[in-house]
Amino acid sequence: MKTERIPAGELLETGERVRFQIPTGHTVELYAEKTDVGNGIGYFDPDVDVLDGPGIRPIRMDHCLLYGGDIEGNLKLFTEVLGFTLVERVKLEDGKTDLAIWITCSAKAHDIAFVRSPEDGKLHHVSFQMPSWESVLRAADIMSINRVSIDIGPTRHGVTQGTTIYFFDPSGNRLETFCGGYDHYPDMHPITWSWENVGRGIFYHDRKLNDAFLSVVT
Amino acid sequence: MKTERIPAGELLETGERVRFQIPTGHTVELYAEKTDVGNGIGYFDPDVDVLDGPGIRPIRMDHCLLYGGDIEGNLKLFTEVLGFTLVERVKLEDGKTDLAIWITCSAKAHDIAFVRSPEDGKLHHVSFQMPSWESVLRAADIMSINRVSIDIGPTRHGVTQGTTIYFFDPSGNRLETFCGGYDHYPDMHPITWSWENVGRGIFYHDRKLNDAFLSVVT
Amino acid sequence: MKTERIPAGELLETGERVRFQIPTGHTVELYAEKTDVGNGIGYFDPDVDVLDGPGIRPIRMDHCLLYGGDIEGNLKLFTEVLGFTLVERVKLEDGKTDLAIWITCSAKAHDIAFVRSPEDGKLHHVSFQMPSWESVLRAADIMSINRVSIDIGPTRHGVTQGTTIYFFDPSGNRLETFCGGYDHYPDMHPITWSWENVGRGIFYHDRKLNDAFLSVVT
Amino acid sequence: MKTERIPAGELLETGERVRFQIPTGHTVELYAEKTDVGNGIGYFDPDVDVLDGPGIRPIRMDHCLLYGGDIEGNLKLFTEVLGFTLVERVKLEDGKTDLAIWITCSAKAHDIAFVRSPEDGKLHHVSFQMPSWESVLRAADIMSINRVSIDIGPTRHGVTQGTTIYFFDPSGNRLETFCGGYDHYPDMHPITWSWENVGRGIFYHDRKLNDAFLSVVT
Repeated sequence: MKTERIPAGELLETGERVRFQIPTGHTVELYAEKTDVGNGIGYFDPDVDVLDGPGIRPIRMDHCLLYGGDIEGNLKLFTEVLGFTLVERVKLEDGKTDLAIWITCSAKAHDIAFVRSPEDGKLHHVSFQMPSWESVLRAADIMSINRVSIDIGPTRHGVTQGTTIYFFDPSGNRLETFCGGYDHYPDMHPITWSWENVGRGIFYHDRKLNDAFLSVVT
Repeated sequence: MKTERIPAGELLETGERVRFQIPTGHTVELYAEKTDVGNGIGYFDPDVDVLDGPGIRPIRMDHCLLYGGDIEGNLKLFTEVLGFTLVERVKLEDGKTDLAIWITCSAKAHDIAFVRSPEDGKLHHVSFQMPSWESVLRAADIMSINRVSIDIGPTRHGVTQGTTIYFFDPSGNRLETFCGGYDHYPDMHPITWSWENVGRGIFYHDRKLNDAFLSVVT
Repeated sequence: MKTERIPAGELLETGERVRFQIPTGHTVELYAEKTDVGNGIGYFDPDVDVLDGPGIRPIRMDHCLLYGGDIEGNLKLFTEVLGFTLVERVKLEDGKTDLAIWITCSAKAHDIAFVRSPEDGKLHHVSFQMPSWESVLRAADIMSINRVSIDIGPTRHGVTQGTTIYFFDPSGNRLETFCGGYDHYPDMHPITWSWENVGRGIFYHDRKLNDAFLSVVT
Repeated sequence: MKTERIPAGELLETGERVRFQIPTGHTVELYAEKTDVGNGIGYFDPDVDVLDGPGIRPIRMDHCLLYGGDIEGNLKLFTEVLGFTLVERVKLEDGKTDLAIWITCSAKAHDIAFVRSPEDGKLHHVSFQMPSWESVLRAADIMSINRVSIDIGPTRHGVTQGTTIYFFDPSGNRLETFCGGYDHYPDMHPITWSWENVGRGIFYHDRKLNDAFLSVVT
């Protein structure tokens, strides 16, 4: 695998980066140093950070889902080289090949996910972390007040068991507000979903995939 | 309007009833006496009633929605004779005629609702009261665990601003788990929805009616 | 009982009032007309009212609790003349005399409450309605961020089963943020608490009264 | 540091353990192998695990808090040898010495905590993870229904910002139901609390320590 080193400072407040292409064609960059810009509440005798303004106000980015061909290659790279763990997978009709994989490098249920797709280098969605199911409802309300295009939700995922809304920004990119998902530890066995149950795995209440969700953004 | 008196005791633990047909063809019965069967927690030094078993466990019936032709007749009867108040209404394309009305005889946002329909005497759904948005999510999860057919939800209504799931029992009757809705007082002005916004009024997040919802049950 | 009529307009945007003193010495005013100043969301095709700013943002005033001597007189006046219903009561050690009564004129668990006290005309607290237990937590967080004096909470009442925080404004008046409480209907039997269980009745989790709570404000 | 190896199988379904005493005098055991006994929902096409029975039903053990003298020694051992990260700390009046430290080896806000104490080898509490603030309320209700002795709560911690109830089992051991806390990553700076703000750090709403909490269990 070819790697490229990008000097420190090329990206604002960021140390040297190592750039490489993963098997599904996406470009990934790793870095070890980033200037600390604070935690939002301060480091001394902090107060709790309550919701006190307009907008959805997610906590942080939670994960992203990428589309491409060689997701076996990605799984091997991320688990054997980058320290990720396989959390859940969906099988194709043959019961053997993976249609999708969810992997983590923390105790979150997923930090990144890949879905098999004929075209490489695609993005399905970027997801933002919400603190509670009630804050997911508020997010949906704010989307409707602003006539934001909602793909689906509020609902629950079977995969990770988190709660979710998928929606589109004005450029057509799919975004997600996501809450929860179980804690994952590296010694836990992965969960496997059959092709027959993929609908329930993705949208636990509707139990079927909707056409809008199957579109790939970029 | 013809009324009929049904003697006390004909319905178990219930006093004399007055039976009549309302303008949309539904049979309504009024009674003043019912044997007290308890409040579920006792009348002396009660404990709080927590969720401690399987099943959705709604608090009680919340309201029902009925279909029929003469909803103006119903509105007149319920508000002028039976003490109900008009809370919200949806207008037809002409901007004058009511497509639907929500009325209350308590401080709840609605106790009964009527939708104009070519056929009289129809039921759209019976709704059960839930204590919180989190309990609505649990209800949806229990429906999916039991493969119950969900019409739509969890979501929010624009009308009443309550949260909701519509689902079907095995006979095909539509039921609802409903939480919240604002408090209503008799001196509040009714809210009016235009034909163009009926989708957002009914399903605040999807902002359109779905085909399943438009079917009438019985 | 002596009544006094106050002409329309003496209080801004308010019709004629009838003023009288209730048996516990508090002055009460009734009026039938008030200029409509809106419902906060509009009367046509409204959007949902989400939390989008700083502060606790209660929905509205919920109830108040008053202290005085002749609470039997109040109970008689409010239930026999003003259309209230008795919802819950706490008995003194003798098991006969009421220490406190909670009464309602809506489907809320209480609209006003009275506690027996040697001095007439006192206020214990004014309470504001919150939409959810999560919003009660946010209220407590905001109080702490602003170093507001909290009496007790977040916790639950045994009486009404609502959730609560009591706190003090800078002048020393006790206020409450209150959520829930069961729906009450006029044909429900009142619930009675014994003297031995009053602690659990008032503060369901601590199961005892705290000194701060027993103080009377004004 | 003296270590002892305990053969596989001595503890049911557990591999070889390494046992040693940490500087505060507590005995710690490490093991790498444990028989998988399932995840509670199954590994294939699982359903969501909803609350469907009596009892508080925490998800799992979350953390424990231990008391002893040499917490600097513990901090050095856990961060330099065992891979933990310091998340928050409280300083004594001198502003230099640690009164308490919270450390993590996952993305949870803490996996273990230590408080300085004259006596070694003590336990303050064992904490169990709850899924939501609403489930913490239900836990408090169940404690009151069963007349379980509650130390404090439901309330929030300033440290970790999680929500909490402390309570005692019939033997007098302190337990906690805990929800949330922010996600922690190893590159985050620790948060420091001053002696003056320790009350708000521990109990964010009461802003003072209560006597019951200061007792050490064993």
